[in-house]
Amino acid sequence: MHLRVVLVQPLYEGNVGSVARSMKNFGFHDLVMVKPCRIEDFGLAMASHARDVLQMSRSYTSLSEAIAGANLVVGSTGKRLDTAQHHLRLHLRVPCLSPAELGEKLQGMEGTVALLLGREDCGLCSEELALCDMLISIPTSEEYPVMNLSHSATVIFYELSKIKEQDGSRVEMARRESLDLLAERSRALLYEVGHPRHKLDYTLLMLRRILGRARLTEREARTLLGLIKRVRWRIGAMDSGPADREKAAREENACQKIGE
Amino acid sequence: MHLRVVLVQPLYEGNVGSVARSMKNFGFHDLVMVKPCRIEDFGLAMASHARDVLQMSRSYTSLSEAIAGANLVVGSTGKRLDTAQHHLRLHLRVPCLSPAELGEKLQGMEGTVALLLGREDCGLCSEELALCDMLISIPTSEEYPVMNLSHSATVIFYELSKIKEQDGSRVEMARRESLDLLAERSRALLYEVGHPRHKLDYTLLMLRRILGRARLTEREARTLLGLIKRVRWRIGAMDSGPADREKAAREENACQKIGE
Repeated sequence: MHLRVVLVQPLYEGNVGSVARSMKNFGFHDLVMVKPCRIEDFGLAMASHARDVLQMSRSYTSLSEAIAGANLVVGSTGKRLDTAQHHLRLHLRVPCLSPAELGEKLQGMEGTVALLLGREDCGLCSEELALCDMLISIPTSEEYPVMNLSHSATVIFYELSKIKEQDGSRVEMARRESLDLLAERSRALLYEVGHPRHKLDYTLLMLRRILGRARLTEREARTLLGLIKRVRWRIGAMDSGPADREKAAREENACQKIGE
Repeated sequence: MHLRVVLVQPLYEGNVGSVARSMKNFGFHDLVMVKPCRIEDFGLAMASHARDVLQMSRSYTSLSEAIAGANLVVGSTGKRLDTAQHHLRLHLRVPCLSPAELGEKLQGMEGTVALLLGREDCGLCSEELALCDMLISIPTSEEYPVMNLSHSATVIFYELSKIKEQDGSRVEMARRESLDLLAERSRALLYEVGHPRHKLDYTLLMLRRILGRARLTEREARTLLGLIKRVRWRIGAMDSGPADREKAAREENACQKIGE
């Protein structure tokens, strides 16, 4: 499992440096930022012997560039969202995993996990959370749940560093393109079967979270894509020539044989 | 279980503030410092909404004052001691627990745990480590094992906050006076049986660590004290009148009955 740490609009260079240091403490090196603050002397000082992590980091202007190619996108959220930001509640009705549960789920998985850490003052916004396959939250005190950015990052790195290298039993996580295709085809199917339009986004987000928590494998993603295709044929929503149908049947058979 | 966080000569006010914030994030409030740096605006800013933790903290000039009354003294050490500070190696020949193992050991225990966190540059010194019943170390990368003070504190608080309140099955940890008495009487006994003088300190430290890791209960500490007393009588090292012997026999019987 490769971890890509994605800082979304970090505001304070000291925190960026601290996160870099903590990454290296736990053996992680891949840092990506979206529209970061300037990193100057204080940020470098806080990184201490992890300046190399800062120097090798990449910055982008959009989150979609920063998560490109990741097999799983995990968003970190604080408890504050529960009460303060009403428009984000829809994201939180789905179960949030703890960092320890995330570590367990990633055990034995192969692929790139993008861990999104939001702004110091307001975390990740609604549109950013919608890009996440999975949400995690650190269990904190009710009295004062708002953690410093580098502290919450440290707790997550600590838990993920517990993941042991396993022999033999690795499983390839679903590819980003397969997941995106699955989202696109699911939307088309829901549209075609007359799912209420105003519920479409929410239902798709819920599906994404379910598949995210399930840590879908590439083989499972392809099987689901095949199933959706078959359903869409049956309801007559897609044109399909005999060649298409034969090809799909071959693909499904191949998947089933591998699965046996 | 009550946690007392003891910062030993912290050098940077920012770190002290950060530790206070993280304490409150995980529901801990009791902060004690030994000869701390001055805490001014930056320290208060880093504490954010945990200024009350700083304001209620106590400062002492000696570590022994800071740990007075604690049932268990836990020292946090970094891997760096292994290679850099030769004179401290003796402390590290004994097993170091991980924060997760410490949490498991403290499950269901009643009493005060003093958690010692050392200086940012050189941690805890030899004499300070000798006052610890138990040592813990966070598993970090070989490449860069030196964590920021508030980061390592956060990982430990996070693990300790996982300890669940249990009904019924609480056990009273051995009292500090009982442990001190046990150390004193063990020293006397070792002396009396002719244990090589140059090994005395090391052997006593080893005993302390074994009993620390075992999370001795008050009842067990008293039983051990009774046993040592009995041995010292037999070897004729202690005067004992008939009244003393009778009292000791009664105490031992009582302990055994409770234990059955």
